[in-house]
Amino acid sequence: MKIVKPSTIAGVMELLPEDQLAFDRMKNIIEETFKKFQFLPIDTPVIEKNEILFAKGGGETEKQIYEIASETRDMSLRFDLTVPLARYVAEHFADLNFPFKRYHIAKVYRGERNQKGRYREFYQCDIDIIGHNSLAIANDAIPPRVIYEIFNKLDTPDVTFKINNRKLLNGFLNALDITDTTDVLRLIDKKDKIGMENTKNELLELVDNQKADKILAFIASDLKNEELLASLDDFVDNNLYREGLCELKTVYSYMIHLGIPDKNIKIDPSITRGLDYYTGTVYETFVNGYENIGSVSSGGRYEKLAENFSKQALPGVGMSIGLTRLFYQLKEIGLVNTNESRLTDILIIPMSDEENFYAIDILNKLHEEGKRADIYLEGGKLKKKFSYADKVGVKYAYIIGQSEREEGKVTIRNMQTGEQELVDFANL
Amino acid sequence: MKIVKPSTIAGVMELLPEDQLAFDRMKNIIEETFKKFQFLPIDTPVIEKNEILFAKGGGETEKQIYEIASETRDMSLRFDLTVPLARYVAEHFADLNFPFKRYHIAKVYRGERNQKGRYREFYQCDIDIIGHNSLAIANDAIPPRVIYEIFNKLDTPDVTFKINNRKLLNGFLNALDITDTTDVLRLIDKKDKIGMENTKNELLELVDNQKADKILAFIASDLKNEELLASLDDFVDNNLYREGLCELKTVYSYMIHLGIPDKNIKIDPSITRGLDYYTGTVYETFVNGYENIGSVSSGGRYEKLAENFSKQALPGVGMSIGLTRLFYQLKEIGLVNTNESRLTDILIIPMSDEENFYAIDILNKLHEEGKRADIYLEGGKLKKKFSYADKVGVKYAYIIGQSEREEGKVTIRNMQTGEQELVDFANL
Repeated sequence: MKIVKPSTIAGVMELLPEDQLAFDRMKNIIEETFKKFQFLPIDTPVIEKNEILFAKGGGETEKQIYEIASETRDMSLRFDLTVPLARYVAEHFADLNFPFKRYHIAKVYRGERNQKGRYREFYQCDIDIIGHNSLAIANDAIPPRVIYEIFNKLDTPDVTFKINNRKLLNGFLNALDITDTTDVLRLIDKKDKIGMENTKNELLELVDNQKADKILAFIASDLKNEELLASLDDFVDNNLYREGLCELKTVYSYMIHLGIPDKNIKIDPSITRGLDYYTGTVYETFVNGYENIGSVSSGGRYEKLAENFSKQALPGVGMSIGLTRLFYQLKEIGLVNTNESRLTDILIIPMSDEENFYAIDILNKLHEEGKRADIYLEGGKLKKKFSYADKVGVKYAYIIGQSEREEGKVTIRNMQTGEQELVDFANL
Repeated sequence: MKIVKPSTIAGVMELLPEDQLAFDRMKNIIEETFKKFQFLPIDTPVIEKNEILFAKGGGETEKQIYEIASETRDMSLRFDLTVPLARYVAEHFADLNFPFKRYHIAKVYRGERNQKGRYREFYQCDIDIIGHNSLAIANDAIPPRVIYEIFNKLDTPDVTFKINNRKLLNGFLNALDITDTTDVLRLIDKKDKIGMENTKNELLELVDNQKADKILAFIASDLKNEELLASLDDFVDNNLYREGLCELKTVYSYMIHLGIPDKNIKIDPSITRGLDYYTGTVYETFVNGYENIGSVSSGGRYEKLAENFSKQALPGVGMSIGLTRLFYQLKEIGLVNTNESRLTDILIIPMSDEENFYAIDILNKLHEEGKRADIYLEGGKLKKKFSYADKVGVKYAYIIGQSEREEGKVTIRNMQTGEQELVDFANL
């Protein structure tokens, strides 16, 4: 028999069971919290028609896609969960209730060049609220509220939400008579990476000194949220700016009222989140003390979810967690607690096959009581059996020899201390 | 804007949220039960290298595969979870503890011709116990025990396990001096479909009358399990037959001892489960009263899990549920209870934006108490809001008008009866 070297394709995350349990625990916390806030699950096919995936026009995305090698070359693996959501809402429009709150936790695919921390297959965890014709601005406070609770339940420090509103930012740039805003926005977006001095120098290549100073004052305030919002009242003035500021104030007040502490919110007029998709509220989320790993959950408000698939006006707001990358990052910095997610507490060890049935009686009893117990049914020496219990990491081994069986007892061994105790079956 | 008609690719299951909740409830029951019996999760990439997927040689499988259209044409979507398991165990051999009990619930892909009840993307739910060098026969009783509990928790009638042992069947055919067993096994496999008379007629084309009668007597006994096993003692005699019978008796006794009632087990010497993979115990599972939908969970014992990827001897035993098809079938025959899986019990309805903050206080309180509550934040008339509550199917609407807010009260409307009651916030 020829042996093929067993290996996965490059650029994917495959975990050993212990880490998988920790990963699944995170995924479950995310899913349970999504459900607590009444987001409904959807599950769409991994393979979509190319005409759906590229309805918006290909560009960068098309190069990254995994296409299926069928004769017709007309389908590919999804690269995000947003296009499938748009297709789903448009296809099932008549059967959905709006606002439609959905979550979707699933794998997406990108033929990325292979580099550290970048994955070709990774989990996205998305929540979105989709309105029909309109969607109240108060909804924009819900996604960060959900994300806040998720990170509270994970083994991480607190998070800080940076929030902004694209109307405020665009209105501000309009008020400065900056019409070609793309380069300025790109610069604002990378200000934390390049530092304030470089930002100013590069700004001066695009606008005059006075405007550069005004932009820097706008995007780099140290004021607290309430004061910052007050200071923005008179900063510049036009309709778009005022609409954006009003929305930002509203979203902030709802976030507070929904229970996100003020200290976990940072209103930040420099947040842009991509240049053409989001139209109002935008958010980024940072783990306090670990800001260098980047935003762990981002999103925002958009006006036209499914304009390529439907004539219905479908505004929405949502946030997303890139779980595979997040798990990798949290593990790297030691914030994944694998002990929390171990499976087995008790391993029942019959000394020989003669004891198996009695050992199974004990297993059945422990299972009835909701205990996390397993049984070791292989032959071999006791040493080998203890070694298995050690490696699996159980807290207790229940040892069943002939005398235990005959007397209806169990020897309970504490695997940490090595202490043993003989207990009646009836008193387990 | 050109509108692309929104549609999935053909041959996939995509559910509306209400059905998705019911589907997820089934999936959760399966997963929780797998975990209760201490199977560990694994999650492997959907895309595998072709050299892994086709290590066994292509054949029928290769035609059904979805290949990725990369330049190198060297990877495809997995068509089952068994090849990925073999690759995983071989690749991570040094880091796993044996017996290695793993579960895997995930989608697999087959480029099937499009026909009713056949899916190109579907969920498999697999459990396997993999030994290193050997695996005690008692393990063969565990997979059916797990599957038994799963179907007990689902909204289905009881199931019956048909079990057999391939050594028994092969030993029996050897004893009759039937050397080319393939045709006979194929015939035995389809006996329920074609009926006993046709089976006998077709058998007579392969063997003489005396052997045909002996085969029919062997595969079509009406005896109860204990009596059947006793009757098999002297049916024919050779080593393989005796080994198979001994294993079958052992597995049966462990199934009983693990808590599967005898009435839910039918020892059936005609069960074959494919011709070349399984080597010992084989199982099929039927929903009582709905035998016509076919086996809902099958599997068996195999000797060489990863012979293409490793020199280690890795015998195993496992069972599998094809969840997508099962959900479709149970839904068709009315055995899926979507009420069990509704998400929202209470919808809070503020009459106007003025009431939103007070309504959120109520939401926060209900969430703290673990209630399944949501809030409707859109504007519009009360009629529209009630209509939403009706469609979502909530039990109670908590109506908040100006007077409720000012007096710290809530009007609770029973959506089934239409009865309303005014309650203090403090007494909620």
